[in-house]
Amino acid sequence: MIIEEITGRIARDLEYLKRFTATPGSGCTRLPFTKEARQAVDFLSGLMREVGLEVREDAAGNVFGVLKGEDPTLPCVMMGSHYDSVIHGGDYDGIAGVVCAIEVARQLKESGAELKKNFVVAGFCDEEGMRFGTGYFGSGAMLGHRDVEYCKKFADADGITIYDAMKAYGLDPEKIGEAAWDEGSIGFFLEAHIEQGPVLDAEKVQVGLVDCIVGIQRYMITVHGRADHAGTTPMDMRIDAVEAASKVIAKIPDWAREKADGTVATTGFVRVTPGGMNIVAEKCEFTVDIRSKNNDNINDIARRIRAQLDREMKYNGGSYEMDTKLVIEPVYLCQDMLSVMEESCKAHHYSYRYLPSGAGHDSLEIGQSIQAAMLFVPSKDGRSHCPDEFTKYSDFSRATVIMTELVEKLLGK
Amino acid sequence: MIIEEITGRIARDLEYLKRFTATPGSGCTRLPFTKEARQAVDFLSGLMREVGLEVREDAAGNVFGVLKGEDPTLPCVMMGSHYDSVIHGGDYDGIAGVVCAIEVARQLKESGAELKKNFVVAGFCDEEGMRFGTGYFGSGAMLGHRDVEYCKKFADADGITIYDAMKAYGLDPEKIGEAAWDEGSIGFFLEAHIEQGPVLDAEKVQVGLVDCIVGIQRYMITVHGRADHAGTTPMDMRIDAVEAASKVIAKIPDWAREKADGTVATTGFVRVTPGGMNIVAEKCEFTVDIRSKNNDNINDIARRIRAQLDREMKYNGGSYEMDTKLVIEPVYLCQDMLSVMEESCKAHHYSYRYLPSGAGHDSLEIGQSIQAAMLFVPSKDGRSHCPDEFTKYSDFSRATVIMTELVEKLLGK
Repeated sequence: MIIEEITGRIARDLEYLKRFTATPGSGCTRLPFTKEARQAVDFLSGLMREVGLEVREDAAGNVFGVLKGEDPTLPCVMMGSHYDSVIHGGDYDGIAGVVCAIEVARQLKESGAELKKNFVVAGFCDEEGMRFGTGYFGSGAMLGHRDVEYCKKFADADGITIYDAMKAYGLDPEKIGEAAWDEGSIGFFLEAHIEQGPVLDAEKVQVGLVDCIVGIQRYMITVHGRADHAGTTPMDMRIDAVEAASKVIAKIPDWAREKADGTVATTGFVRVTPGGMNIVAEKCEFTVDIRSKNNDNINDIARRIRAQLDREMKYNGGSYEMDTKLVIEPVYLCQDMLSVMEESCKAHHYSYRYLPSGAGHDSLEIGQSIQAAMLFVPSKDGRSHCPDEFTKYSDFSRATVIMTELVEKLLGK
Repeated sequence: MIIEEITGRIARDLEYLKRFTATPGSGCTRLPFTKEARQAVDFLSGLMREVGLEVREDAAGNVFGVLKGEDPTLPCVMMGSHYDSVIHGGDYDGIAGVVCAIEVARQLKESGAELKKNFVVAGFCDEEGMRFGTGYFGSGAMLGHRDVEYCKKFADADGITIYDAMKAYGLDPEKIGEAAWDEGSIGFFLEAHIEQGPVLDAEKVQVGLVDCIVGIQRYMITVHGRADHAGTTPMDMRIDAVEAASKVIAKIPDWAREKADGTVATTGFVRVTPGGMNIVAEKCEFTVDIRSKNNDNINDIARRIRAQLDREMKYNGGSYEMDTKLVIEPVYLCQDMLSVMEESCKAHHYSYRYLPSGAGHDSLEIGQSIQAAMLFVPSKDGRSHCPDEFTKYSDFSRATVIMTELVEKLLGK
């Protein structure tokens, strides 16, 4: 198979998929359980059938295509990603990984070899969690981590719950439990994905071997001061929430840099109450998002934030709350599979590097209980979750070549 | 005149005035050119007539009451403040100063002495600038600083200009120029006002002698970074607007403290764009309000802010704008008048201290061209511009005793 031909097929499929957006001309908006989701799933099912896969949709809105092996009772090898997008997102985040998995099935089929185990292509529903403020819905359901209560608990901006959205989409949310696969039935999980960060593009590296999906801790911190007149209240008689908060916020990025191992920490949200230019702030709320492949580093930065807040309160007066919004431990991916892909990169003279994933993926959910491997392709300028997200089709081709070789080994061809 | 009797009169007048609010039960809302303004002016006019003053309203909505002296051609002594309020403000800010001026006229009248010059009680319109986003309208018009263009330029939240609001109130905005007094016709201006800050209350001091109305510089600073994924963008590849901004904001209060002369600096507003907890900030806007009786200190802090922003841009990347919103130089009040009041305080055994005014007042506008003096009375807990603004009526009484003695000297009784 020559690489140009693969590129052509991937280009054709991804170009066609671009039409399934609720915001034409303004990026991809493909929320779960919508018309656009239905259109994308139907198109992906058609592609899978063309390749000769046995297609089925499950109770959670996932779509699977099975390439039968000699012994379907053996743990399968699964490859895939999600087909939903964020609002005004890009055309590659998620869905390109499903298209790559279908392309791997094509290459396996074309090689004509008999496979011992099943190869399963997966298109997961609602990884982004954009609509209901959640995430990893489809892959979570496959692992038995989603139930009817969960579906009733979360609702979108219009107040429609996952439960009702599923019913409107033609699914029976009462049967969500049926989406769970038997323990041990999935032997390995593979995912190809765009990097969504600038590293590969900046370093002109073609393939990213993802050794870890970083852990995340996310906090909403509220500093309480006292509203006072900014002109008439002497500096030593005020409790300025902005002063205390800024003295903490200013230090956080340096604490992440100090770790010098890719640890990142970000304050992306700040809100000041009442917010008048001539009023000392009564309240300053801000978020901190800390990520690292080393969980100790995350814990250490969270600890330092608390200690610094304590110091500021002691010095300034006031009080604070530090509300935990998210705690995810790092997931280390399967080094044996990464080593196989590394050898393939060398054999094909593809440039590669190991790197962690700073974003969550279906592999984060799945990798907690199943051996998983991820491969990244470059994102131009690191842009993602926006209409100018871009990856060259030839980069996806290389990914499928590497992953087909890995899958062949795993399937015991 | 015993002090309890004065307290009773001031209490009666201020209690009655509490009813003229657009937000009963929720503080005083007395915006210029409204029904509540009309009611307050009518009530104040009535009080002035009772005392025997000659009352007139001018083309700008100000109300004056004149206690005639032997030679009305001599420069008068004027005392007053404003009768408007902010939205959901307190019952004393401004209007108490008008009531105190009327009380001074009462005491002058009761003393029975013949006065050489006119004593004029002034109730100014729209000092706060709340409705039209301006300020010092009435006192400015008295000095000839407001014209028809000005009235047409500024509008309230409903799009009603000062011009149209004046017409609806029964004034002719075309005649605004007639509100200007002849140069030299006002010899001295006196204002009693609540402190609106915590100093007198915290130190249990009864009378504040205001030696200066601080200068103010106000800036809106916009730091431009680049929006990036908070998880996938390494620390050394991001341009984080919040990081740069917080490193500047955190230093500003300490620069003010370093001056150790009452200089204050405040960041009361911060806005982050796009504001997602997992997105590196593209933009961070914040305000700085710097006040000092020493203009060099204000200039120095503004200069340090620029220098620190330059350093952060050099280190972090990105760019910034520093937009000047307000520049007012300090106004020094008349030391001779303050000395007279100081002697009165000593004679009456009132505790007193000198302090600057951190807020603007009609005296700021007037003090630029006319000899002016201000006296502060304590604000409980420094609260102002809110319904829980509070000053004891006996504090106002003391102010009128002190100021009556000053006025008698100035009038050449």
